Amino acid sequence: MKVQSTTTQQDDHFLISNYDYKSTNIEKNGDKYIAKPQITNFKFKTDTRIPKVGVMLVGWGGNNGTTLTGGILANKFNITWNSRRGTHQPNFYGSLTQSSVIKIGTCNTEEVFVPFKDVLPMVNPCDIVFGGWDISSLNLADAMSRAQVVEYDLQQKLRPYLEKLDFIAANQGDRADNVIPGNNKLEHLNIIRKNIADFKQQNNLDKVILLWTANTERFCVEDPNIHGTAEKLLKSIESSHPEISASTIFACAACLEGCSFINGSPQNTIVPGVIELAEKAGVFVAGDDFKTGQTKFKTCLVEYLVGAGIKPKAIISYNHLGNNDGKNLSQESCFKSKERSKKTCVDDILESNKVLYPTEEELNIDHTIVIKYCPETGDSKKAMDEYIAEIFLGGRQTFAVYNVCEDSLLAAPLIMDLLLLCELFERIQFSKDSSEYQRFDTVLSWLSYLMKAPKSESGITTINSLSRQRAMLENLVKVCAGLTIDDNLRLEVRYGASRFQQ
Amino acid sequence: MKVQSTTTQQDDHFLISNYDYKSTNIEKNGDKYIAKPQITNFKFKTDTRIPKVGVMLVGWGGNNGTTLTGGILANKFNITWNSRRGTHQPNFYGSLTQSSVIKIGTCNTEEVFVPFKDVLPMVNPCDIVFGGWDISSLNLADAMSRAQVVEYDLQQKLRPYLEKLDFIAANQGDRADNVIPGNNKLEHLNIIRKNIADFKQQNNLDKVILLWTANTERFCVEDPNIHGTAEKLLKSIESSHPEISASTIFACAACLEGCSFINGSPQNTIVPGVIELAEKAGVFVAGDDFKTGQTKFKTCLVEYLVGAGIKPKAIISYNHLGNNDGKNLSQESCFKSKERSKKTCVDDILESNKVLYPTEEELNIDHTIVIKYCPETGDSKKAMDEYIAEIFLGGRQTFAVYNVCEDSLLAAPLIMDLLLLCELFERIQFSKDSSEYQRFDTVLSWLSYLMKAPKSESGITTINSLSRQRAMLENLVKVCAGLTIDDNLRLEVRYGASRFQQ
Amino acid sequence: MKVQSTTTQQDDHFLISNYDYKSTNIEKNGDKYIAKPQITNFKFKTDTRIPKVGVMLVGWGGNNGTTLTGGILANKFNITWNSRRGTHQPNFYGSLTQSSVIKIGTCNTEEVFVPFKDVLPMVNPCDIVFGGWDISSLNLADAMSRAQVVEYDLQQKLRPYLEKLDFIAANQGDRADNVIPGNNKLEHLNIIRKNIADFKQQNNLDKVILLWTANTERFCVEDPNIHGTAEKLLKSIESSHPEISASTIFACAACLEGCSFINGSPQNTIVPGVIELAEKAGVFVAGDDFKTGQTKFKTCLVEYLVGAGIKPKAIISYNHLGNNDGKNLSQESCFKSKERSKKTCVDDILESNKVLYPTEEELNIDHTIVIKYCPETGDSKKAMDEYIAEIFLGGRQTFAVYNVCEDSLLAAPLIMDLLLLCELFERIQFSKDSSEYQRFDTVLSWLSYLMKAPKSESGITTINSLSRQRAMLENLVKVCAGLTIDDNLRLEVRYGASRFQQ
Amino acid sequence: MKVQSTTTQQDDHFLISNYDYKSTNIEKNGDKYIAKPQITNFKFKTDTRIPKVGVMLVGWGGNNGTTLTGGILANKFNITWNSRRGTHQPNFYGSLTQSSVIKIGTCNTEEVFVPFKDVLPMVNPCDIVFGGWDISSLNLADAMSRAQVVEYDLQQKLRPYLEKLDFIAANQGDRADNVIPGNNKLEHLNIIRKNIADFKQQNNLDKVILLWTANTERFCVEDPNIHGTAEKLLKSIESSHPEISASTIFACAACLEGCSFINGSPQNTIVPGVIELAEKAGVFVAGDDFKTGQTKFKTCLVEYLVGAGIKPKAIISYNHLGNNDGKNLSQESCFKSKERSKKTCVDDILESNKVLYPTEEELNIDHTIVIKYCPETGDSKKAMDEYIAEIFLGGRQTFAVYNVCEDSLLAAPLIMDLLLLCELFERIQFSKDSSEYQRFDTVLSWLSYLMKAPKSESGITTINSLSRQRAMLENLVKVCAGLTIDDNLRLEVRYGASRFQQ
Repeated sequence: MKVQSTTTQQDDHFLISNYDYKSTNIEKNGDKYIAKPQITNFKFKTDTRIPKVGVMLVGWGGNNGTTLTGGILANKFNITWNSRRGTHQPNFYGSLTQSSVIKIGTCNTEEVFVPFKDVLPMVNPCDIVFGGWDISSLNLADAMSRAQVVEYDLQQKLRPYLEKLDFIAANQGDRADNVIPGNNKLEHLNIIRKNIADFKQQNNLDKVILLWTANTERFCVEDPNIHGTAEKLLKSIESSHPEISASTIFACAACLEGCSFINGSPQNTIVPGVIELAEKAGVFVAGDDFKTGQTKFKTCLVEYLVGAGIKPKAIISYNHLGNNDGKNLSQESCFKSKERSKKTCVDDILESNKVLYPTEEELNIDHTIVIKYCPETGDSKKAMDEYIAEIFLGGRQTFAVYNVCEDSLLAAPLIMDLLLLCELFERIQFSKDSSEYQRFDTVLSWLSYLMKAPKSESGITTINSLSRQRAMLENLVKVCAGLTIDDNLRLEVRYGASRFQQ
Repeated sequence: MKVQSTTTQQDDHFLISNYDYKSTNIEKNGDKYIAKPQITNFKFKTDTRIPKVGVMLVGWGGNNGTTLTGGILANKFNITWNSRRGTHQPNFYGSLTQSSVIKIGTCNTEEVFVPFKDVLPMVNPCDIVFGGWDISSLNLADAMSRAQVVEYDLQQKLRPYLEKLDFIAANQGDRADNVIPGNNKLEHLNIIRKNIADFKQQNNLDKVILLWTANTERFCVEDPNIHGTAEKLLKSIESSHPEISASTIFACAACLEGCSFINGSPQNTIVPGVIELAEKAGVFVAGDDFKTGQTKFKTCLVEYLVGAGIKPKAIISYNHLGNNDGKNLSQESCFKSKERSKKTCVDDILESNKVLYPTEEELNIDHTIVIKYCPETGDSKKAMDEYIAEIFLGGRQTFAVYNVCEDSLLAAPLIMDLLLLCELFERIQFSKDSSEYQRFDTVLSWLSYLMKAPKSESGITTINSLSRQRAMLENLVKVCAGLTIDDNLRLEVRYGASRFQQ
Repeated sequence: MKVQSTTTQQDDHFLISNYDYKSTNIEKNGDKYIAKPQITNFKFKTDTRIPKVGVMLVGWGGNNGTTLTGGILANKFNITWNSRRGTHQPNFYGSLTQSSVIKIGTCNTEEVFVPFKDVLPMVNPCDIVFGGWDISSLNLADAMSRAQVVEYDLQQKLRPYLEKLDFIAANQGDRADNVIPGNNKLEHLNIIRKNIADFKQQNNLDKVILLWTANTERFCVEDPNIHGTAEKLLKSIESSHPEISASTIFACAACLEGCSFINGSPQNTIVPGVIELAEKAGVFVAGDDFKTGQTKFKTCLVEYLVGAGIKPKAIISYNHLGNNDGKNLSQESCFKSKERSKKTCVDDILESNKVLYPTEEELNIDHTIVIKYCPETGDSKKAMDEYIAEIFLGGRQTFAVYNVCEDSLLAAPLIMDLLLLCELFERIQFSKDSSEYQRFDTVLSWLSYLMKAPKSESGITTINSLSRQRAMLENLVKVCAGLTIDDNLRLEVRYGASRFQQ
Repeated sequence: MKVQSTTTQQDDHFLISNYDYKSTNIEKNGDKYIAKPQITNFKFKTDTRIPKVGVMLVGWGGNNGTTLTGGILANKFNITWNSRRGTHQPNFYGSLTQSSVIKIGTCNTEEVFVPFKDVLPMVNPCDIVFGGWDISSLNLADAMSRAQVVEYDLQQKLRPYLEKLDFIAANQGDRADNVIPGNNKLEHLNIIRKNIADFKQQNNLDKVILLWTANTERFCVEDPNIHGTAEKLLKSIESSHPEISASTIFACAACLEGCSFINGSPQNTIVPGVIELAEKAGVFVAGDDFKTGQTKFKTCLVEYLVGAGIKPKAIISYNHLGNNDGKNLSQESCFKSKERSKKTCVDDILESNKVLYPTEEELNIDHTIVIKYCPETGDSKKAMDEYIAEIFLGGRQTFAVYNVCEDSLLAAPLIMDLLLLCELFERIQFSKDSSEYQRFDTVLSWLSYLMKAPKSESGITTINSLSRQRAMLENLVKVCAGLTIDDNLRLEVRYGASRFQQ
């Protein structure tokens, strides 16, 4: 099922869509805002040829990596499995691109929705070639058993497929028995570059994307002299500077090999030097930290409350989990990285509403983040939150939420979405007011819906509210496909001919 | 602070805005959807003269009525009060129009938000003249004490203002000691009409709006011969037909006196005959059932899940409350009305996603509504919900939510919003493709954001997802004010001159 | 490990213990209570020979029956199994007799605890021979799969053992395809009696106990003329009276075959006529309704609160579950049986405290029970409770509890306890003040710890508080074993020689 | 209403009760435990003359101190007050002594319960004279307003009584503007001693008790050379040693003035030197940390689970509160004190059950304590807990508990109980096997029911399970009053004459 718009141009290679973008310039004049609507013409050109894509995961043998790989294999080979609840079919639930839908228009008075993936030509996740690194030398089947995420019967059925898959050695500490052999950071960089090049060649791939799904690292201490430019960064790697984190070396290697890089953990991997390297290579970088459970809920609930004129006063977010991520976060330095990405996520929503938050002091609500390691819960992530909001006449509305999810079962399809969308956006160019076509910004902030602390290019404020993030992504895809944006007025239904014909 | 667009036309009386409405017609062709974008021109003409408005509440002496009246008085006279937590200022928290904001555009790269109420000229809630009926003969001060909603100290301070306000008698059962004296339904209708006319005249009002905030009634058994047309309905009232509910008589009286009518309870007050009466009178009807707490949350959470490709499988919604509404709902027949309005609210969200719900059977998820009367909790409404959703590879994500709110403190500002928006929409007309100006549909479905079971004109499907409902309302107001719709692409920030100038 | 007291007498067959029972007679005199302590001598004689025991379950193929049978087999043959969480060992967690401990005394200053089962000679659960009836004709292996309780891998490993086990037909409705062939209730009675006799003989058993773990039935309408005596009851069975429930027929058959009968569902199976039959046969009857999760918690929490001088004001208990029990309880008539057993469980605790509850009106707290059928949750039982208690100066303490358990995994070990303790008490006799030895009362209220609505002999009030129920059982076993009751004063530790020697 | 036993001896001054205490010595012999029951005679002599008692609170102006003082005044002068919920009467809800009951015996077959306070002659809380210290110089009325605990209307009504009450200066940091003027720790000690002596004399009191309800201090680093003996301790005070905490100085002053001392915070105030001082002075010390909410619940729930053979595997206890205690605990060093007292509270319960916890490793369950400061919640304390327990066949039972209480409204009556019981125990002596009468141990572990980390004399293990702690206290009082201990067998009801006479 494919969508085709009558207003786009399509040749063998490209789909071109024309979009009159409307915005409003605001000027303040005394107690009046003067609003000046503007129209700017944009053209979007999408390369419709679907390439052969390889993905290399840093931390492939972790819970996310094994769940993603196993889950895609289950779908590819249509493997069913049993649990005490009966027989299960594979699916892509939890994936924005594969399992959510987009309204594309109206047929008579009925709204028509299609899967997100059908609006523009996208890679089929079952066609991705996976590879990657891990600090543990287990094969992928054993790594999946250790992860304790996937049902036992499915583990057994996937074992023959997974046993064949070996990790490349990686260079982290902890449960590491499979570290990269190099003696210094430069050697590491070069080994990783060679790994990428070999992987691409051996699998005959059109492109490769790297994604960090390994442990949260501590924040490195950013310094313009160390991380500020591509040149300085490479020099710092040469000198094995201690404030160059492992993830940054992977990011550099990706850029130098012409691969986009996505950071799924909260630490500050994507320093300015990395962005410059990506810029030069014409690839994307995106981050930070997958937005799966508690934070996703938070940016949804707080948006609803503030949008209703209700004033959040306190947000207390407790978490505990028992997987390796939980263990890692029990270290204060790593927790600090996570706390930052989880805590800033409502700031822009609160700041937008000056009726509820007229002062800086009001904005400084009680917002507490706690993450605890609890081995008993395994990969299950338990979030216990309290939201306290002020309502009319000093009253309170309180939400106490107990949210249980499987951490990796939420993260795996989201990783897939990041990869597929990143790949798609590599095939899109735009022209503003008939100027030359260019690619999107190097820092791919379009993916913010999937990120706890979405990284933007400098000068672009971050949007955290969930429905706005989703609208941004949905509308971009629709615009490229030549579909109209939905303003929800539904005037063609309310006052169109078709309604009265029925 | 007012907003003024450079693309609108404004004279002494009217603000005229021009809108090229874009929609997409979809045709299905084999495995392709052919999307045909359309543009239709609409002009919106808003009368900018703010009238003197009276509001008559049916059930004025209930928790909602007393809280709304007292709360507006506290704001009007800037009355502060003490609780053990300190000194409190009056406000309009929880009101969409007074306390939420709308993005109107961008100033350099910064988004600019203004209060909803400042986009178009709206009535100041402090200027509304209140009146109404109640089945109890308490004065409003005593009714507020009985309600146990407002802090004791504020009750004391409001007493001098409220003691002067007397109810008109009403015709319900239960704690009724103040029933309308008439002998039959026709006499009741006429008495109510006279009440309205007297109220309007005595207070020298430009217009009056009626709103039902009395008890939930049982569903009347709808019958085309009884309720199907204006004529049949009036005949049925004449004959005191038992399936003519009290609320329907109030609705008829409103229409016959040229007043819009809003139904805040779940029962089927607005039968076809009422709509015809309203149509003839050129007034609006809107309903049903205020969307305050649990259902608002539900239409937000389910939209988030389905939008993320996650599949809700069970929704169990328990409620208990101790106010008169709770007592009334403990009667099975009234509960049935409520259950219906609470239960259908996710259907359209699920139906839109055929990936998650390919069959009718899948759509039939476990969805249970329970409401219990618990006097101990007073006006506090406790909702205990479980949401179970299927995620990747047969996993589950579970939300157990315990939500405590003050029922009437959420409802009161929402009632205010309904009244203010209904009044505003009475001042808006539109012209399609340069045809004659007309008013909006008689059934005012624009207000769906505020309604648990939003009533639409026939042929228009209902939208329940919270962010779409809010967008509909926000965008309508923006369009009328000549502001551009936000597609969230933020291209003027991403690729505009101002970003690079900074 | 066995316990042996130096003050008991033990011969080949019997263990005899001497107990000076202390009680206090209270007389009221003006504003004084006159307390007259009393001592009465009791002798307890326990037959220490462990018999070969058979158990027949009504509803053997249900979730409880299959879980219990499978779980005991896993223990008997030491079967391990895998889930995604790793490899599991069988155990008897959740069993009072097998997994809880009793303090038997002090060794130096250290308290010494032994497993409950080691205080008196008890049957090993692995030695029980199981049989029973079911309305479905599945074999036990398929029934266990349908139940969806036990992990899939364990199901597979138990299959060879369970496939051999066939049900006897039973006479209920619903998913019945295996009903007892008889034409009337008398014929049913006789068939059941023959089933019991055959089972006992074929398995060469010393004794058989019957236990009802089938669906909750509606309350039968009790009538002295129908159920009041053994004779009337048997006549009513002869005439196939409609108010003779299926469970009552099983109970009669048990008594007539000399077997004790335990009712695990809430309905009024054990009518006076059944008690008379049991009395004559010298067997026990016990009931009603297993106390597993929510109610157990409730009788624990309310006891704690009232014991601390805190006043429960409202208890709202919501439940939903997806197994066959849940489905059955969604019928109003069956729910009524359940509601009664769940709702009375705190009455005696509240009534005991006249400071908190001086009047009947105060005692009438808000106490609501809701049970809903939610197929999605399967055998998982979700309880969502709110407890609201009044504390000092009008304050409130609120507990919102979300309790998830596997219904049958809690019930199965509890069923085992009921059977083992019932069997044990059949071997105990007592003599008061040197009178002739007699057995315990026919209605075995000692088992109240395990019962939601514990049935007592007439004239004996029911104790529902959990710690008192447990103390009753623990102390009875200790007294029979010649151990001293623990008053928790620990004077031998505080002021004994051993403490000062250390 | 008073209780009088026929087996006690009563003269003008003393009530003497005779108790044959039964215990069991255990010896292990191969796989057998040999249990040797013992009887030891104890006599308890209670001075029945009720003294005039003064209480001095350290931290009188805090939330607990003001709530307790105000609450007792409300009871004493029968002050009623209004909130939005209506008119309130004063009471002593939440007090073990004033609002809980004890079973004293049986009248016919009915159990007879009387208030705890009526079993032995106890001080009426309304007769206590209050005094104390605070680091803030507010008067008590203003301190109560700052506390934000008591309803505003009651605050207003108590103001005239409280304004007259002034604090003595104290010597802590933080919001201190009222510190003791002395230059060194010895001077402080002497000033406090003089404060006590003056207070006793000015109010003409028979005795004074001191209680610490000020902030949690950090643990001092205990050292035998500093705190090990009375002599060393006094020397360390003389030298103003930094590891002598403020609370320890108050404890010393109390002992030296012949007053018992109770520590309501978790830190290690009661060092060995303090105990020696108390021993010499013949007064009691008791501690540590009031057991009000989460921990009380925990020691109740865990006891129930382990007692049912269910195995707790993880306990995650989150707390947040907004009062000064919460602020203070946000300091890591003070939190450490609290964490210790909250975390050890289940250890003895788990250790007792070797079936569930056969090894040290098994005992090491996940047990996490988090306390966060959240100003928005004020004195409301929110506890969010998860308990995960293993049940049959590897299943799990999970409790997610959200508990809201008013911290000080739970603590105030508990403080009152501590004072009243401490005072009572000062009037009780016992004689073992007719030896000379002696008072109870200096460390008053009888009060453990009220303490989070109950302190015991060396050589006496601590009991944390709630029902055992309560039984200990209840039984002690009953034994002193000549009432029999309840073994819950109810044999006099089951097999007594009265049942059959009815």
